[in-house]
Amino acid sequence: MIKNITNVRGITCWGAHTGVKSMKRDLAIIFSKVPASAAAVFTQNQVVAAPITVSRKHISDGKAQAIVINAGNANAATGKLGMEGAEAMASSLAEELNIDKELVLVASTGIIGVKFPTTEIVEGIKENVKKLSNRSNAGSLVANAILTTDTFAKEGFVEFEVDGREINMGGIAKGSGMIHPNMATMLAFIVTDIAIEPKLLKKLVKETADKSFNMITVDGDTSTNDMVIVLANGLAQNSIIQSKNDEGYSIFKNRLEEMFIHLAQLIVSDGEGASKFIEYEIVNAPTEDYARTMIRKISDSSLVKTAMFGRDPNWGRIISAAGNAGLPFDYEKVDLYIGSEKRTVKVLEQGVPLEFDTNYIKKILRESHLKILLDLHHGKAGSKGWGTDLTTDYVLFNSVYTT
Amino acid sequence: MIKNITNVRGITCWGAHTGVKSMKRDLAIIFSKVPASAAAVFTQNQVVAAPITVSRKHISDGKAQAIVINAGNANAATGKLGMEGAEAMASSLAEELNIDKELVLVASTGIIGVKFPTTEIVEGIKENVKKLSNRSNAGSLVANAILTTDTFAKEGFVEFEVDGREINMGGIAKGSGMIHPNMATMLAFIVTDIAIEPKLLKKLVKETADKSFNMITVDGDTSTNDMVIVLANGLAQNSIIQSKNDEGYSIFKNRLEEMFIHLAQLIVSDGEGASKFIEYEIVNAPTEDYARTMIRKISDSSLVKTAMFGRDPNWGRIISAAGNAGLPFDYEKVDLYIGSEKRTVKVLEQGVPLEFDTNYIKKILRESHLKILLDLHHGKAGSKGWGTDLTTDYVLFNSVYTT
Repeated sequence: MIKNITNVRGITCWGAHTGVKSMKRDLAIIFSKVPASAAAVFTQNQVVAAPITVSRKHISDGKAQAIVINAGNANAATGKLGMEGAEAMASSLAEELNIDKELVLVASTGIIGVKFPTTEIVEGIKENVKKLSNRSNAGSLVANAILTTDTFAKEGFVEFEVDGREINMGGIAKGSGMIHPNMATMLAFIVTDIAIEPKLLKKLVKETADKSFNMITVDGDTSTNDMVIVLANGLAQNSIIQSKNDEGYSIFKNRLEEMFIHLAQLIVSDGEGASKFIEYEIVNAPTEDYARTMIRKISDSSLVKTAMFGRDPNWGRIISAAGNAGLPFDYEKVDLYIGSEKRTVKVLEQGVPLEFDTNYIKKILRESHLKILLDLHHGKAGSKGWGTDLTTDYVLFNSVYTT
Repeated sequence: MIKNITNVRGITCWGAHTGVKSMKRDLAIIFSKVPASAAAVFTQNQVVAAPITVSRKHISDGKAQAIVINAGNANAATGKLGMEGAEAMASSLAEELNIDKELVLVASTGIIGVKFPTTEIVEGIKENVKKLSNRSNAGSLVANAILTTDTFAKEGFVEFEVDGREINMGGIAKGSGMIHPNMATMLAFIVTDIAIEPKLLKKLVKETADKSFNMITVDGDTSTNDMVIVLANGLAQNSIIQSKNDEGYSIFKNRLEEMFIHLAQLIVSDGEGASKFIEYEIVNAPTEDYARTMIRKISDSSLVKTAMFGRDPNWGRIISAAGNAGLPFDYEKVDLYIGSEKRTVKVLEQGVPLEFDTNYIKKILRESHLKILLDLHHGKAGSKGWGTDLTTDYVLFNSVYTT
């Protein structure tokens, strides 16, 4: 049997249909029996949806106990009424659960700029609170109820031990389907029963998001609604992790990173209109930030992305994109490898193009999981990132879709 | 009769065929009878071609007298031999012209990473120096000899008066054809007979490039070879412009800006694989830099570019791209207009979507010159920028082209 968020101690949830979307489930509620340490990262877009404003405020004390998510309407560019709608989602759920309003976090995904259907959603919340359950099917319903154009539900679950206590962690996510980018919100919700101090959790979530959700690109834009939330309710009863030196910290850190990267990669692999999943890695860079910035520049480059679609080991485009990151680097030290997750070919050594068998590389580039590895020989740090190719389908879909 | 760079006092030039390209002219020489005040802006790519290194060094004293350009081989990623080739281009031309080597600037455009054909090019220089001419056809030959995948030669000419003296200014450029981005160098050479002090010219060229060449985007990447050079040889004999307060300064500034924008727009309009020319304008922004950064973010957005290809007035993608520029802005003050250079429709007022006739806008968006205007109501500065749409042809061309 597959474990999911319902296998985390004290977690119940439900996914329902309120009518905002015509056929599919469009409302999800996740509830923790006890208040949890809570941390989040929000979109960096300067235009933010109403639920971002509300959740940012409610999570500021590092505590939360419930999350309510609606799909179909992003509650972005919806003015004062939208803000009232987001507040109403939190207060109606708090009332039903008999908890403090500030313990409820709110998320939305869907169309931007359409009047927010507060009444339907509040009614949906009231009707469905009594269905909250810790059965496995409830977890699946929630994973599906947060989707918009995604073609599959995205879930993860890990178990591990801290202090001799079994820790459970489950996560769900939705991605940025490329076909309807007005609904391209990236959302992820991770719940765990580990005990960890809120400030330490906050720092860890930020650091881990920088290595995972912030290192994926489907079309280079971040939406008005992006949000990653982690709730840690402590019901595993390990002795609370309070410092980076605590034994449990590095165990949890590694498993959280594994979970974030797993969900982030699922999002990339559901990039509609894309035909390939590409892993980018930079090694021997001056700093991790340097490597990340350069990877993002390469993985966002239309020229690199179209080359991968065309199975072209076009090292010139990759190096030129790297050079556009605005970071000093010594081209004459660079080695570059192009290929798949299984096998790569060195195409550039110390900045000099190597002879290679074009047909062999083209054959490798037929694979669905590609790999581009840049060795800068210019430090000891590195990073990874993930993206897709750019296809004729992408342009076709995004140009025929109308507002 | 059409005037060109040969109508600038003291300027002679020639365009020739050396054999680096199989059929077309591939070598251009521009010569000023007397040493000129010289200023340039170079690519911001961290990987630079050999001619950039040589020209940067030679122009550092603010003086130059000749420019030699080869097309077909970019002399980038060509190592030590490439650097020797770029030096040889300068020294062989200097020898033939009997001038100092440091007065020669060098530019290259073409394929990256292919051994530089120094011998052929140096022979070509020696053979063709004696053909340097101030006849109009010589100017046309030069404008054509610097092209690679461009579909037309890009030229400009203006006359104006300073100090009662007639000033001539001519310019040529080549663009970043999108089909073969390994040859996507942007080059521009402007010659004028105005007298202006080199340091003042340098500052002006930088500022003007920021408003023109740096505000165009075809595919978001800058190449290893980009270069804009201005030579002002003083033969018009106006009293030399030495300060921003000099009467002639603002006259020259305006005409130089006109020339740069003219050439930059020609480059955009030759973006192969693009179907539309788009002008972006931001008004009432806090600063000009702010407006420029935001325009570049919008004009580089694949989602905005595919929407324009699909004739979709998708304000959500435009606002979301603006929000991704990392600049604070008050969404609830924003007005947005979408349309063509002839007529635009207000689609967003103070952040609220307006009702509009979709069919009417779709009809406007059939035009070839589109316009997107964002009024931030958040300051008094503004800027313009220019770009293209993103088409299925672009992806097709860039994915089938192989290294």
